[in-house]
Amino acid sequence: MAGPLSHARAWRPGVVQQVCPDGVLDLGPGYLAPGLLPAGLLAEAYHGAFAEFGAAALAYGDDRGAEPFRAAVADRVARAEGSACGPEHVFVTAGTSHALYLLARTFAEPGDVVLVEQYGYDLGRRLLRDCGLRPFPVAMDAHGVDPGAFEEAVTTVRAQGRRVAFACLVPTFHNPTGLVMPEARRRDLLAVARRLDVLLVEDDAYAELDLDGRTPPRSLAGLAEHQGVVRLRTFSKTLAPGLRLGYLLADPSVVTRVAEQGVFVSGGSANHTTSLAVAHALRSGAYDRHLTWLRARLRTRRDALATALRSGLGCGLGPGMGAGMGSGVGSTVDNDFACDPPEGGYFLWVRAFAHPESALLAAAEAVGVRVAAGSRFGSGPHAAVRLAYSFTEPDKLTVAAGLLAEAWRSASTTPA
Amino acid sequence: MAGPLSHARAWRPGVVQQVCPDGVLDLGPGYLAPGLLPAGLLAEAYHGAFAEFGAAALAYGDDRGAEPFRAAVADRVARAEGSACGPEHVFVTAGTSHALYLLARTFAEPGDVVLVEQYGYDLGRRLLRDCGLRPFPVAMDAHGVDPGAFEEAVTTVRAQGRRVAFACLVPTFHNPTGLVMPEARRRDLLAVARRLDVLLVEDDAYAELDLDGRTPPRSLAGLAEHQGVVRLRTFSKTLAPGLRLGYLLADPSVVTRVAEQGVFVSGGSANHTTSLAVAHALRSGAYDRHLTWLRARLRTRRDALATALRSGLGCGLGPGMGAGMGSGVGSTVDNDFACDPPEGGYFLWVRAFAHPESALLAAAEAVGVRVAAGSRFGSGPHAAVRLAYSFTEPDKLTVAAGLLAEAWRSASTTPA
Repeated sequence: MAGPLSHARAWRPGVVQQVCPDGVLDLGPGYLAPGLLPAGLLAEAYHGAFAEFGAAALAYGDDRGAEPFRAAVADRVARAEGSACGPEHVFVTAGTSHALYLLARTFAEPGDVVLVEQYGYDLGRRLLRDCGLRPFPVAMDAHGVDPGAFEEAVTTVRAQGRRVAFACLVPTFHNPTGLVMPEARRRDLLAVARRLDVLLVEDDAYAELDLDGRTPPRSLAGLAEHQGVVRLRTFSKTLAPGLRLGYLLADPSVVTRVAEQGVFVSGGSANHTTSLAVAHALRSGAYDRHLTWLRARLRTRRDALATALRSGLGCGLGPGMGAGMGSGVGSTVDNDFACDPPEGGYFLWVRAFAHPESALLAAAEAVGVRVAAGSRFGSGPHAAVRLAYSFTEPDKLTVAAGLLAEAWRSASTTPA
Repeated sequence: MAGPLSHARAWRPGVVQQVCPDGVLDLGPGYLAPGLLPAGLLAEAYHGAFAEFGAAALAYGDDRGAEPFRAAVADRVARAEGSACGPEHVFVTAGTSHALYLLARTFAEPGDVVLVEQYGYDLGRRLLRDCGLRPFPVAMDAHGVDPGAFEEAVTTVRAQGRRVAFACLVPTFHNPTGLVMPEARRRDLLAVARRLDVLLVEDDAYAELDLDGRTPPRSLAGLAEHQGVVRLRTFSKTLAPGLRLGYLLADPSVVTRVAEQGVFVSGGSANHTTSLAVAHALRSGAYDRHLTWLRARLRTRRDALATALRSGLGCGLGPGMGAGMGSGVGSTVDNDFACDPPEGGYFLWVRAFAHPESALLAAAEAVGVRVAAGSRFGSGPHAAVRLAYSFTEPDKLTVAAGLLAEAWRSASTTPA
């Protein structure tokens, strides 16, 4: 399959969300590079949807989402997990941000607490706060959210007279750390959440992007057979964020409760035409072929970044937080840095044991590499930086890693 | 331009929102008929967007919406109204339901009142109630919302210690009555709203569907130069509701306030890829050609319905609420029924002066014609029924009108 179109001239501010300044190597946002966005596939998918569904692809769609799309994704989930999943478990959303917003507006009241991970998606927390909710971080270890800390957090919040509306987590290829929560931890966490009657929201945006051919553990939703878990999936990380298409998987009663809101009864499916285009790509096999192609390209990028960073920094797995499933890349321990190449997703998480974050950021900026400050995502005992390998070509990642390693090794170990 | 594809086999429950039972003539929902949904145009539009923008059509879009789309619609508004309108006034939405939901969540607090028209879009009121708001109807006359009643409503609400978050109205080709608010009334209403400091939300879903070649009065937003007015536009009534694409026009400070919410900062534009497809159709002229084609088809349908209804019922303009701009179809007065053929939009509003609504609905059902009960939209001194001519072929509208007229003339004049 040939690489897709790029059209660099259209990749400009006002069209796309953010454009990196010229000459800067961009390891900041969790974006796919232009060359990884499959314009050809989607042109064909829309064409196919109009050929197959005609005017029905343009009408108000079923409030829960069009059945052909819901059946296609449910079938995919059932085959991947060997679990019961049908169209009745699927509600079509306009992506994970939209889904989170819907949950915040449907299952929470202003003032409620939402448990979040110690490190987690900063814009998700902002979205929750904009809905009047209070994100409350729960400590993580090398296996993800700690069930004991989870219980303690629920107890603390309830002792303050507040309600825990739900808990959000990314158990697979976690953003920003890349961690995968092992199955045993998933089961422990499910048991605690069930006992405390806390709804779990499983953000699975990266879960299809395993890069080493190892299938991640079963989802929380699959293990719980959709009881007490809402699983959020999106095509933003595997196909194209501009589509604004995702879905949530939940007990049919939850699907009904979300769909019964006036905004869907009035407007119908959140993204009808596009959902039928993607249904076409799912059923034709084009999506699976693309996923194989994309995984290979992300693997090359991860390896380029991790190899150059390890050789430059001598960094390895550090104490307290490693890659959950082990790693195909391998690593060594060093006193100053730990970098944990993930088994999937977009991100490599670098922790620094001797340097303050401000020094790491200043050094990165000085050598023209854009990175994401660890403090954007949460706080812990050490400084950290998130590096996205999804947006930058492999050769440039090698250059960026070399520049970062050199700059960081010689960076100040006292705050600026 | 050839008529679009239909694919009746795909027009089924689970794909589209509602399907009329076999054998029933459907004058109920405000839907475009399958044959009026331009699948060919949109297949070409998506193809054109991918050819022009490539990967940039698939990326996270600018939070306010992609500039090429915003510039195209702003230019269109500026040309149509001769007023200042630039991309800075435009925020891309996923249709009018989404826009109303956003306004309800951004400019109102649960418990606030929203002023609505005496008769208005029922699912819009449901949407507001789902957001914890209280719709408060304001009396209308033959020119739309009455400014004196508007002021009285604001005073009453504020005297109860409640806040008026905003007021919603459809000044052009009103749903359900088809009325057009004359320019003098628009200016009066704007003056009252400004004096009382009430934000006006102008729902303009049908405004491009003038059927007699007479341009409607300038929009409230245009008259007010976007001060104190948010204007909602959508492609659901002129192109295809499944696209989930619309926009709001407002002062740039309002655009910024909406765009700054976490859900857009996280997910970018509400419907990026589709907005660039529609931008392509706007710029190529395909949308304007389609609009001309669609107006002609809606005109034929309106005329078929109005002519047969008038001849069957002898209905005409009744007292108290007529078509605001006069009518190209003409009418006569009768003691029992008034039907006001609108100059645009989808709906013909029939009032009955001798019959209760229950008798009208029972009679329509008995002859196999689906209609919308007037009480869905509000209440007034007389029974009323809304007939949509947008979904049914002209020859079938003639049949339906004949059946309704005969059934209604012989219907009971006492409640069932």
